[in-house]
Amino acid sequence: MTLAERLAAELGADAVIVDPDVTSSYRHDMMPLAPYGSPQAVVLPSNTAQVQAVVRICAELGVPIVPRGAGSGLSGAANAIDGCVMLVTSRMKEILEIDADNRLAVVQPGVVNLDFRNAVEKHGLFYPPDPSSYDWCTIGGNISTNAGGLCCVKYGVTTDSVLGLEVVLADGEVLKTGRRTVKGVAGYDLTKLFIGSEGTLGVVTEITVALRPLPQAPGTTIASFSTIEAAGDAVTRIVREGLVPSLMEIMDASSISAAEEYLKTELGTGKGCAALLLCQSDAGGEAARHELEVIEQVCRSAGADLAYTTHDPAEGQMLLQARRVVLTALEVYGTWLTDDLCVPRTRIAELLTGCERISQECGLRIAVVGHAGDGNMHPTIVYDASSEDEFARARKAFDDILEVVLSLGGTITGEHGVGRIKQDWLQREIGPVGIRVHRAIKNALDPENLFNPGSMF
Amino acid sequence: MTLAERLAAELGADAVIVDPDVTSSYRHDMMPLAPYGSPQAVVLPSNTAQVQAVVRICAELGVPIVPRGAGSGLSGAANAIDGCVMLVTSRMKEILEIDADNRLAVVQPGVVNLDFRNAVEKHGLFYPPDPSSYDWCTIGGNISTNAGGLCCVKYGVTTDSVLGLEVVLADGEVLKTGRRTVKGVAGYDLTKLFIGSEGTLGVVTEITVALRPLPQAPGTTIASFSTIEAAGDAVTRIVREGLVPSLMEIMDASSISAAEEYLKTELGTGKGCAALLLCQSDAGGEAARHELEVIEQVCRSAGADLAYTTHDPAEGQMLLQARRVVLTALEVYGTWLTDDLCVPRTRIAELLTGCERISQECGLRIAVVGHAGDGNMHPTIVYDASSEDEFARARKAFDDILEVVLSLGGTITGEHGVGRIKQDWLQREIGPVGIRVHRAIKNALDPENLFNPGSMF
Repeated sequence: MTLAERLAAELGADAVIVDPDVTSSYRHDMMPLAPYGSPQAVVLPSNTAQVQAVVRICAELGVPIVPRGAGSGLSGAANAIDGCVMLVTSRMKEILEIDADNRLAVVQPGVVNLDFRNAVEKHGLFYPPDPSSYDWCTIGGNISTNAGGLCCVKYGVTTDSVLGLEVVLADGEVLKTGRRTVKGVAGYDLTKLFIGSEGTLGVVTEITVALRPLPQAPGTTIASFSTIEAAGDAVTRIVREGLVPSLMEIMDASSISAAEEYLKTELGTGKGCAALLLCQSDAGGEAARHELEVIEQVCRSAGADLAYTTHDPAEGQMLLQARRVVLTALEVYGTWLTDDLCVPRTRIAELLTGCERISQECGLRIAVVGHAGDGNMHPTIVYDASSEDEFARARKAFDDILEVVLSLGGTITGEHGVGRIKQDWLQREIGPVGIRVHRAIKNALDPENLFNPGSMF
Repeated sequence: MTLAERLAAELGADAVIVDPDVTSSYRHDMMPLAPYGSPQAVVLPSNTAQVQAVVRICAELGVPIVPRGAGSGLSGAANAIDGCVMLVTSRMKEILEIDADNRLAVVQPGVVNLDFRNAVEKHGLFYPPDPSSYDWCTIGGNISTNAGGLCCVKYGVTTDSVLGLEVVLADGEVLKTGRRTVKGVAGYDLTKLFIGSEGTLGVVTEITVALRPLPQAPGTTIASFSTIEAAGDAVTRIVREGLVPSLMEIMDASSISAAEEYLKTELGTGKGCAALLLCQSDAGGEAARHELEVIEQVCRSAGADLAYTTHDPAEGQMLLQARRVVLTALEVYGTWLTDDLCVPRTRIAELLTGCERISQECGLRIAVVGHAGDGNMHPTIVYDASSEDEFARARKAFDDILEVVLSLGGTITGEHGVGRIKQDWLQREIGPVGIRVHRAIKNALDPENLFNPGSMF
């Protein structure tokens, strides 16, 4: 039997795709820089036993497996390797349990983030991780990349919401990690080792997450600054003031003008606006009022030209839309290539200045939006995809930005991951000892290099 | 040269102890059940380079190393093995950096938890993890066990506050994990793999922690219940109500009477009190008032005989003292043996009932105190240490409690660790695949089994 026949015998013919016209749509994620190959098959298992079967067959035949969720990734970590089997979790999309009294839920990896958020909201509960692609990315993909989002400044990233995992290992065995309790230290923290491992250590087949009480509808403060330094200073002062807003986003001049153009609105900022800061508080009632009052004051004293607060959720949503549309708005000017990095919160202004310089050097538009509350920035380079020269310049700008990041004491990826675009940078950031430890762990769990070989390191 | 001479040549003679009268005081931690041997030497390195020297010498000679902080552990994880070198971090007690603007600090492992809390408090900052031994345990020990405390219901455990580590590996090389930024996904989450690994994977020599804004002085609510079920119900309702108190502790009748006797006070509970619930809110102002009002109401509607709230911090401290003195208070009746486990929050009453049954069966006093907000309970068995029979019954009760815990969907350790007392239970909880993965990782990082062999698994 061929590989495809063996897979079909275990999973059913409809769960195995070999038609290149179809499999080609599974070749890559949303990162244009990352290389990708052509899979020999795409499999769509429905349960853990089927995942085990796929792993065992591929292990026996020495065929690499690339696990994939929705394909919304931005580092090529779920890109096909020539001749691989793409293991796509989209059919494993059941919410298996919502235990409201213990504030936890158990889900399969293919559940879409937004569907899950909506489901727990009906129980008055909240699943914080909210990557920008939350209306189509999957929880499994979020686990794989340790996804973040806009919530992180107050609620942390994916790993902070996960209690336990079920994982199919390279030998086809099922490993259960973690627990259903709030605390637990029985053995190594394997849960958090698998989270963010980008599909290189196993296939996650079930996820137990901790939920939070649903927060109050947020109030929103928007502030505009005529210099980047003043905006950076406002961020530092807000942190220093001991405030923990539920959202704190920054947009530079390029992002603002793109969003204004796209929304056909003025955002009320006028000319000469170098940066916008958007903050929310979901503390509710007096606490939220107080928090945003202080934020508004701090922004003013840091030199904001305009600072405005609303407690009307609809108006807040509208203000936030400017932030949310930036990537789409940039498409008017060309193809976008978004970078992902994190700097200490006090160094945000220096990063933005660095991006301005790089933009001038490469002659391309670079718009910076980011999660100012945790220093996680997304400089986005716009280029003409039909021009090899522009692509090369964009590629160089992408690297130049990371150079600045390391000089500021930052990290080369805050939430998108290493994947197939930052392996060299990972090596630079963590050094030879770090890489050796990575290889040792990979080798301990996946000695035949079955899962996602060549990704990350 | 002998081992001790070689160590002395590297560290200086005053940093190497071989006198058995002195080394004997380093043989074990605070857990009476755990076996321990006699070290051939105790070393007190002052910096990372000295730790590297110790590791290289011991690796060359095949002498096991047991890393140790203050010795406040409760699982024997830092107990000596015959002929080992105890690597004690007490001289590495510098706070290397407090970066208030980025809310982070860098410390050496020997810093005492309370000293560090006090140091950051001066900057208006807060380091949450607060194990009961916080006035003498060290941050390094907290990392090793992933320590918890009373803060966890709102602020999480040690791993939730750590950004990065410096670790000396079994080959003497220095590994840097993590980062100084809030977010970061560059590679596997090695930081969290080392946290809670109980000294089996390396020696932690530097720790970068995330800090929080100093919370408000807490308000306190105390409620007494005439049945355990009513107290358990109150916990479930508080969680279900969407409240996140900054502390939520439970005491059973045995704990209450011991504390009352010790403090020569009545706690105002009267006779027939089966359980006390203590809650705090550090949200400040109106928010705290509202939170504790709701908690008080919920307690009453769950059947509390008495519920009382104070916003006077001194009075709150006094009420909390009843909880804090329990272990000391129990010493009047004999030696205590405290267990550590975690159950889903809805199962706390069943656990307490189980402990009552076991107490009757073994004929020994079992007092239960615990962190009700996260289901992390500490049933404490009191026995006569001079009676072999009583010790044997205490030992059996210790295991019987864990049996109940697993039947309730709990975990065998919430914050004290596995160490040298729960290896069999770890095996039961995580199964053969889990153990195999542990061994594979241990073998990948410490192939000669140099660090703390025989502990955990």
